[in-house]
Amino acid sequence: MTDTILTLDQVEDLAHQTLARAGASEEQSAAVARSTRLAERDGIRSHGLMYVPIYAEHLRCGKVLGTATPVVSRSRASAIQVDAAHGFAHAAIDAGWQDFVAAVRGQGVAAMAVSRSYNCGVLGHHAERLAESGLVGLCHTNAPASMAPIGGSRPVIGTNPFALAVPDGSGGARLVIDQSASAIAKSEIILRARKGEVIERGWALDADGHPTEDAEAALAGSMLPAGGQKGFGMGLMVEIFAAALSGGNLGIEASPFSGPKGGPPGTGQFFIGVDPVAFSGDGFHTAILRLTSAITDQTGARLPGARRVANRKRIEMEGVQVDAALMDRIKTA
Amino acid sequence: MTDTILTLDQVEDLAHQTLARAGASEEQSAAVARSTRLAERDGIRSHGLMYVPIYAEHLRCGKVLGTATPVVSRSRASAIQVDAAHGFAHAAIDAGWQDFVAAVRGQGVAAMAVSRSYNCGVLGHHAERLAESGLVGLCHTNAPASMAPIGGSRPVIGTNPFALAVPDGSGGARLVIDQSASAIAKSEIILRARKGEVIERGWALDADGHPTEDAEAALAGSMLPAGGQKGFGMGLMVEIFAAALSGGNLGIEASPFSGPKGGPPGTGQFFIGVDPVAFSGDGFHTAILRLTSAITDQTGARLPGARRVANRKRIEMEGVQVDAALMDRIKTA
Repeated sequence: MTDTILTLDQVEDLAHQTLARAGASEEQSAAVARSTRLAERDGIRSHGLMYVPIYAEHLRCGKVLGTATPVVSRSRASAIQVDAAHGFAHAAIDAGWQDFVAAVRGQGVAAMAVSRSYNCGVLGHHAERLAESGLVGLCHTNAPASMAPIGGSRPVIGTNPFALAVPDGSGGARLVIDQSASAIAKSEIILRARKGEVIERGWALDADGHPTEDAEAALAGSMLPAGGQKGFGMGLMVEIFAAALSGGNLGIEASPFSGPKGGPPGTGQFFIGVDPVAFSGDGFHTAILRLTSAITDQTGARLPGARRVANRKRIEMEGVQVDAALMDRIKTA
Repeated sequence: MTDTILTLDQVEDLAHQTLARAGASEEQSAAVARSTRLAERDGIRSHGLMYVPIYAEHLRCGKVLGTATPVVSRSRASAIQVDAAHGFAHAAIDAGWQDFVAAVRGQGVAAMAVSRSYNCGVLGHHAERLAESGLVGLCHTNAPASMAPIGGSRPVIGTNPFALAVPDGSGGARLVIDQSASAIAKSEIILRARKGEVIERGWALDADGHPTEDAEAALAGSMLPAGGQKGFGMGLMVEIFAAALSGGNLGIEASPFSGPKGGPPGTGQFFIGVDPVAFSGDGFHTAILRLTSAITDQTGARLPGARRVANRKRIEMEGVQVDAALMDRIKTA
C-alpha cells in the first residue's frame, strides 16, 4: 500500500466523479469538488478529500439531496436569498453568486442569505472569493449546537465560525480571518477520544456543566468558547446572522453534520459584501497596507491566513499526498 | 460633602450645559448629552458623567472641535459616509442617521461609515438604536493602538469593540452584544496601576512582549486579546471596518483618547444595518425567541446586555447618584 500524489486537477476530478456516482447532479458535484480542491490546495485536509466519503454517505442516506436545485430570489436591491433546498451549500452559494456580487458593486453593500443548507466547507474560501472580486467579505455559517452559554450546561449554538477577507487590489486577498467561536476544534476532541487521551482544561465541559479533561465526557457535554463570554458572543452573532436572519435552522434544531441520522440539517449561511470603493476609495488599499505591514514587520507575528498561503505555494508545486486507506475509502464510496 | 441624586433629565441637562460652556455647538452638545444620559441610565458609569469633564477638556484643547459640522454623503444606494470633521462621533452619527435607516429599509442592507471622528461613547447604544427601529445593527469603532499581534510586542490595533443588537419586534432590543477584543478593559489596568496593585496573567504584555503582572509595565506594553489569536482576529475585523473602510485613522496613527495631547484622534466608526423583514420575514422574531429562550431557560446563564437592562429598570426609578467630587469636577469643567 503506497501513497498516491495527485495534482489539484486530479483532486477535483476524483471528488467530482465520486459525488456524481453517489447521486449528485452536475451542479451539486462540481461545486463541492471545487471546494475540495481549494481545501487540499491550502492544506486544510479535514475539509478536503477526507470529507468526500462523508459527502457521498450523506447523499446516499438523504442528509443531502444530490438533485436539489437552489432557488435564488431578491427581496430588495441589496438582499439576496437562496433556498438551498437541502442540497449542498456550495451549489446554493454558486447559484446566488453573480447576483450577490452585482448587488454589492451596485449598492455598495449587500448580503446573501442561504437557508435549508448544510455545512459549506472552508468558510474562508467564500470570503476570499469576494476579495478576488475586489470586495470585503464577511461570512457566517452556523452548525448543530455544541456550545453552552456561560453559566449554563446545555449547548445552544455551534462552534459557528465567521470569516473576513480583504482584497489586495490585484485579484487576490491580502488577509483572510477564518475562526470558529470555540477554544478548540471539535475534531481535536474527537481525535483525543479515539486515542484515549485527555484534553486540556478550558476546552470543554461535561454534561453537568463542569470543567473536564475527559474527551468522552466532553463529547457528551459542551465545547467552551475562546475567551469565555466574548467567544460565546461571537458564536451568538454568527447564529443570529446565519440561522435567524437566513431563515435556516437554529443549531438547537439542526440534525448532526456527522453520521447518517436525522435527515437534512437545514442550517444556513449569511454573507455580507462591502465594496471599499464606495466608502474609502483608493485610500482603502494604502490603509490596509500600513495596517498589515505593522503586523508583518514584527518578527514572530503573521497575518491571519498566512499559513494557508504558505501551504498553497508548496502544494501547488508538490501536489496532494493521499494515503492508500483514504484512496480506498473514496473509491468505494 | 454629600452625594447628589439626579434624574436622567437632570443628567442630560448637566452634560449639555457643561459641554456648551466648553464651546460645543447645540448639535454637538445635545448629541453627547443624550449619550451621557443613556450611559448613566444603564449603569455604565465610565462613559457617563465621569467622562463629561474629559469631553470639556478635549473641547478646550482642540482634541475635539466643538463647532464642527458633520457632512453626510451617499456614494451608492446602500453606502452612507459621514465626515465628522473632528467633532464628536455622536453628532456625526446623528447627522447621517435618518439617511442610514432609510437606506437599510429601502435596500434591505446598508452601511454608514464615519471618518475624522472620536470615540462614540457606549457602542452598544448605537446598535440598540437600530434595533429600536426594527433593524439588526452591527457596529464597529476603532481606538488608538494598544494590542500587539500574537507573537509580536508592538501594539497595532486598539481594544476595538463591536456591538450587535437584535430587535424584539416591539420597539426595543431583544439582546445587545457589546464587547471589546481585549481580555480586560484598559481602564481596569489603569485603576490597578493607580492603586499599586498587580494585574492577572493573561491581561497584558510588557514592552518586550513578555507576560507581566505589573500594571505599570502593562501600560508601557500591550493589552492581550480575549481568547488569543481569535480575540486579535476580532479586533482586526473592527479595525478593517472602522478605520480602513471608513477612511478614518488607523489605531497606529491616532492620537490618544485620554489626555490633552496630539490633536484630534481622527478614528472612525462603521455601522451595518440589516432589515430582517427583507430576509427571513416574520420567522425572524420567532427564531430569535427560540434561541434566546434556550439561553434564559438555563439557571445561571443570561443574555448579553441583561445586566444593562437590570440597571436601567433600577436607575430609571432611583435616579443617578453623583458624589460631590465628581459634581465639583463637572461644575468647574
